Amino acid sequence: MAKKASSRLEWRINVPDGTSKVLEPESGVVGKIWVGLKGCMGIIVLKVWRVLENAWHIGVADPRKVIHCIKVGLALSIVSLFYYMRPLYDDFGGNAMWAVMTVVVVFEYTVGATFYKCINRVIATFLAGALGVGIHLVAEQSGDQLKPIILGISVFLFASAATFSRFIPSVKARFDYGAMIFILTFSLVSVSGYRVVELFELAHLRLSTIAIGTSLCILVTTLFCPVWAGCELHHLIHQNMEKLADSLDGCVTEYFKENGSEKDLNKKMQGYKCVLNSKAAEESMANFARWEPTHGRFNFRHPWKQYLKIGASLRNCAYCIETLNSCISSEIQAPPCLRKHFSNKCMKASSYSINVLKELVITIVKMKKSSNIDVKVAEMNFAVEELVDALKSLPTTHFIATTTGEESTKAKAEGVEGSEHPNPIMKVLPLVKVVSLMVEIATRIGGVVNAVEELARLAEFKAAKDGKPKQNQPTDKLVADH
Amino acid sequence: MAKKASSRLEWRINVPDGTSKVLEPESGVVGKIWVGLKGCMGIIVLKVWRVLENAWHIGVADPRKVIHCIKVGLALSIVSLFYYMRPLYDDFGGNAMWAVMTVVVVFEYTVGATFYKCINRVIATFLAGALGVGIHLVAEQSGDQLKPIILGISVFLFASAATFSRFIPSVKARFDYGAMIFILTFSLVSVSGYRVVELFELAHLRLSTIAIGTSLCILVTTLFCPVWAGCELHHLIHQNMEKLADSLDGCVTEYFKENGSEKDLNKKMQGYKCVLNSKAAEESMANFARWEPTHGRFNFRHPWKQYLKIGASLRNCAYCIETLNSCISSEIQAPPCLRKHFSNKCMKASSYSINVLKELVITIVKMKKSSNIDVKVAEMNFAVEELVDALKSLPTTHFIATTTGEESTKAKAEGVEGSEHPNPIMKVLPLVKVVSLMVEIATRIGGVVNAVEELARLAEFKAAKDGKPKQNQPTDKLVADH
Repeated sequence: MAKKASSRLEWRINVPDGTSKVLEPESGVVGKIWVGLKGCMGIIVLKVWRVLENAWHIGVADPRKVIHCIKVGLALSIVSLFYYMRPLYDDFGGNAMWAVMTVVVVFEYTVGATFYKCINRVIATFLAGALGVGIHLVAEQSGDQLKPIILGISVFLFASAATFSRFIPSVKARFDYGAMIFILTFSLVSVSGYRVVELFELAHLRLSTIAIGTSLCILVTTLFCPVWAGCELHHLIHQNMEKLADSLDGCVTEYFKENGSEKDLNKKMQGYKCVLNSKAAEESMANFARWEPTHGRFNFRHPWKQYLKIGASLRNCAYCIETLNSCISSEIQAPPCLRKHFSNKCMKASSYSINVLKELVITIVKMKKSSNIDVKVAEMNFAVEELVDALKSLPTTHFIATTTGEESTKAKAEGVEGSEHPNPIMKVLPLVKVVSLMVEIATRIGGVVNAVEELARLAEFKAAKDGKPKQNQPTDKLVADH
Repeated sequence: MAKKASSRLEWRINVPDGTSKVLEPESGVVGKIWVGLKGCMGIIVLKVWRVLENAWHIGVADPRKVIHCIKVGLALSIVSLFYYMRPLYDDFGGNAMWAVMTVVVVFEYTVGATFYKCINRVIATFLAGALGVGIHLVAEQSGDQLKPIILGISVFLFASAATFSRFIPSVKARFDYGAMIFILTFSLVSVSGYRVVELFELAHLRLSTIAIGTSLCILVTTLFCPVWAGCELHHLIHQNMEKLADSLDGCVTEYFKENGSEKDLNKKMQGYKCVLNSKAAEESMANFARWEPTHGRFNFRHPWKQYLKIGASLRNCAYCIETLNSCISSEIQAPPCLRKHFSNKCMKASSYSINVLKELVITIVKMKKSSNIDVKVAEMNFAVEELVDALKSLPTTHFIATTTGEESTKAKAEGVEGSEHPNPIMKVLPLVKVVSLMVEIATRIGGVVNAVEELARLAEFKAAKDGKPKQNQPTDKLVADH
């Protein structure tokens, strides 16, 4: 009996009335496996479903990604023709494989990335092929004994050197892919040259198939709905600028608002996080953008590096907004009467700062020098000065005495907070933080203005036509005069 | 004469004494070209020299990079043996090319990245090969007319789908390379299957050469001075933590110091910038680390994702330190007597905060639960509370009156600043900023402590042996009791 019990696992439930009930498994081992399989299948189906759902959202959010996939399929189908069409096949034979491979490896989402890979691939293949053939000829002269040794050592040396070059930042930024292709082609040529007699013929065929593959890629990527890395970078920068303005607006509104938080506001406030995290994207786009030919409003030598500087200055602002955001969620808040007192001034300063950012967005979007950016910067500085003045004039001994008196009587009457921080500095502290952050943000927006003006100078933006004539009055003077 | 002059460019110098001198070019067109060439050569030599110098510094700074290059050379030389040794060549023939290619493409700096690429390559090649052969068989059945159409459509569909999958973040993080290899192999198989009869034979040979290449890579990368992505991530995180502590120390010391800035201090202060910029590196390392087998103190299922959370909390701190850093360079500074008053308290709070960070560094380096982290956190919170109390007790009307009195008499006597901001709030403002940032930094260090404790729980760190028994007294209570 004991043996039987141990050989069969049972689930027993002790019911409160003293009896116990045995839970029978559905139908032995087969049943268990079936249940297990059903569970596994369920999980897999769920995961696949989630991935598909995710994919659908990605496709809907940016249809250009779907178009990119169609472009890849198209390029591959065209290159497959080399195999299917007999006359072409007779020319290229097995080497047509290289054209297929080139298309798969080289076709990237942006035109810049495709150009980068194409140019790198062609140049590296050519260089490595020439070097490989050269070393092969030298090795041929030195006899059958020495030949494998010379070839082996040369592969070792060149592969190591090219691998090391990939660690050098300036080489990595421009020729990382080229270095890899160099190693690949060099080892293949010097190794297969050992067997194949028609080395020059092979090199010629390979180069021409790669040329076919790369030119096909370039044609498809530039002619059908091209995605320019430069345009993407341009959009990213002014979108980030807008997000920053929205975050600043959201944060200040949230801080000084009187009712509960709105959902929309909360989402708006989080925009600065995108700015904080977009460094890597900006850098890779700027790297690819410089390979792109003239397109739209962008020249071949458009100052893409300046966009990185604008991005850095935007991140600088975002750090401050991040700190401002943490002020909002801070537990200690200034008493309502003080907040009301500062609300207008702060909102004004923030709205003038946002105006400057919005003006910069327009400058970048239109690629035209703004005629009234100086005025807007002056307005911002003036509003910030006013805010600081309000803070300066606030805690005269009289004001402190009266407000504390008012507050404490209120607090006594209602039993509310306020009595917790009986000394005035603690009351003003949260406001002082916000004001000093507003000052700092305005300073950093000044940095963004400088970066954008430098871009306008480098890229030779034209002056906006519809604007008023540019005011030559310097910003500092305007502020100092108030 | 005029014609002659215009046909020849001259450089004329007007010497002050009235005569003018014609600068003769060295020797006509040839000379000019020679000078131009010399200039070009000079620039090229200089550029190459700079790159080489740069490369030398990189090699000296991290010799493991040099070792990596030697490893790549070694792996390639070994795989070349397949060509040089006749019996092996007879087995694999031209397919040995795939082994060379695999080594070049798959060999990466870290073990994790190599594993990621190897596993992706083998699985993707196998799947795509099987699918390609299957579709080929189906196409074979449907006659010569339909065959190229079926093959072409299948290439189009699968290539598009696989390309799209690379846009899905979860797929991109783990299987990006696999998706590319899938497209490559699938197109090659379905396209070359049109010609080559021995498709199974070919698939078998290709798989086995790729297996040889990948296993060689894995052997070389793990046996000779392996660089584990997990270890790198681990080091990066605790190094960043140390840098953050140093920056905080540097900033506070710089703010309250009495003499001019030291150079060492300035360098120390900039450490937080590394923390701000290390997000991308952390993410890629965490991605690779999860492919790595058990090594050293790290299991296969080590919670690498938690390191990203620690990294995020460190960046959170770094934002605040960035703002603190900008306070230092701010033009408005608190008057010396007030700064002296706060100097000790602030230094104390910062040194206790640094203690907490250093303790966390030790926890991570030793991978042992700290026995006295709770005490250190309590000390930090206590010091911060003391700092806030000092600020609270400062601006009683009496104190303001006396200090302003003192200062203004001083200012009148010496003609120094101080009279600029006659109201007390502007004097305290810079200090209030620093104090509130110190409070915020302490709060965010609390976030780092939580993230590290979560890591200790997930990775099952053991308790430190040499420490005192863990104190169960909760942190909040200790602070509240003061």
